[in-house]
Amino acid sequence: MGRRSDAGDRILAAGTKLFGQRAYAAIGVAEIAAEAEVPKGSFYYFFPSKQALAMAVVNRHWEHQRAEWLRILTAPDSLADRLRALFVSTAEVQRQAVNGTGAVVGCLFGNLALEVSAQDDPLRIRLQEIFEEQIDIVEDAIRGAIEAEEVTVATPRESAKSIVAQIEGMVLFAKLFNDPGQLDRLWQDSMRLLGVDEEAAAA
Amino acid sequence: MGRRSDAGDRILAAGTKLFGQRAYAAIGVAEIAAEAEVPKGSFYYFFPSKQALAMAVVNRHWEHQRAEWLRILTAPDSLADRLRALFVSTAEVQRQAVNGTGAVVGCLFGNLALEVSAQDDPLRIRLQEIFEEQIDIVEDAIRGAIEAEEVTVATPRESAKSIVAQIEGMVLFAKLFNDPGQLDRLWQDSMRLLGVDEEAAAA
Repeated sequence: MGRRSDAGDRILAAGTKLFGQRAYAAIGVAEIAAEAEVPKGSFYYFFPSKQALAMAVVNRHWEHQRAEWLRILTAPDSLADRLRALFVSTAEVQRQAVNGTGAVVGCLFGNLALEVSAQDDPLRIRLQEIFEEQIDIVEDAIRGAIEAEEVTVATPRESAKSIVAQIEGMVLFAKLFNDPGQLDRLWQDSMRLLGVDEEAAAA
Repeated sequence: MGRRSDAGDRILAAGTKLFGQRAYAAIGVAEIAAEAEVPKGSFYYFFPSKQALAMAVVNRHWEHQRAEWLRILTAPDSLADRLRALFVSTAEVQRQAVNGTGAVVGCLFGNLALEVSAQDDPLRIRLQEIFEEQIDIVEDAIRGAIEAEEVTVATPRESAKSIVAQIEGMVLFAKLFNDPGQLDRLWQDSMRLLGVDEEAAAA
């Protein structure tokens, strides 16, 4: 049992690594098994298909990221400070990736979203759900700030979506230019998208 | 000669279609040749490699899009009106794609950027150049608006980059949700990123 679940973990870790590096479509089960150092047959003991592994990888990644977003965005600080902490954390993840592998990994969800969107499959639906959840978390933080009279935002959900879109766009630049510094403007942009004077917020 | 250049055009069109639909890494020369209805050997008469074709596809796409962006963003209108026209045009391209193929195609450059970023190849460098050019065009429009005293923007290049990032993020949503309506907020977001009161700009 110990060895078996160890192999399952290794397959999950191999999928996370490979899907973060190259196109999902270009990675086969044989390569994932080799990276995990398990026989190809073992792969199918744990996952019925590459898609099932991708779903598990996505779910585990979101489980971790969701906990981090909730921890940061429900903290007892101002919305401006909470968003700043979120972007510091986002940039830190990319800086660690550069230090570890030499490359900005970008956003696993965004990478997969652009690739699987042409297909109407369960992975695409799951990615839609995850982005909706990201927007939910930011929306809740904005609504809290409205109640606390920190900001006046007419359409909290639309503003939350604009902020998540800005994160995805800037992460794309960070990945293309292999430069986590591309994320440094996210806080200022988010303040502007919320209609907050960033100089007042920074003070 | 007539037949030969016709075949070259067909290969270019096949590459444009296939790279817009699926992962670059998952598409082989044989499939491109089949889509173009030319023998596989003919492919290599026109393009030394799949990468060479991708470069030609990207360059032709940017040639067209660049002309469109310049036409719209150098028009003798206010910056607010020019940006509105740009986003109407962007959404129209995606709506035509939905009507034609049933799917939002997204941004060819963004799709490829997320896939090739892990590799240090000429395609990645070319995509960096194209995004820099997009930012240049928007920056020039902003600088013109500053001179015309339409807006006050402290860092025109950074604001231009924020707008291009917002386009990429919203196009990702349009693709993932297969819904060009996701682009409808781009104008309002851009006004906010420029620090312009959108109600005043809309009036």
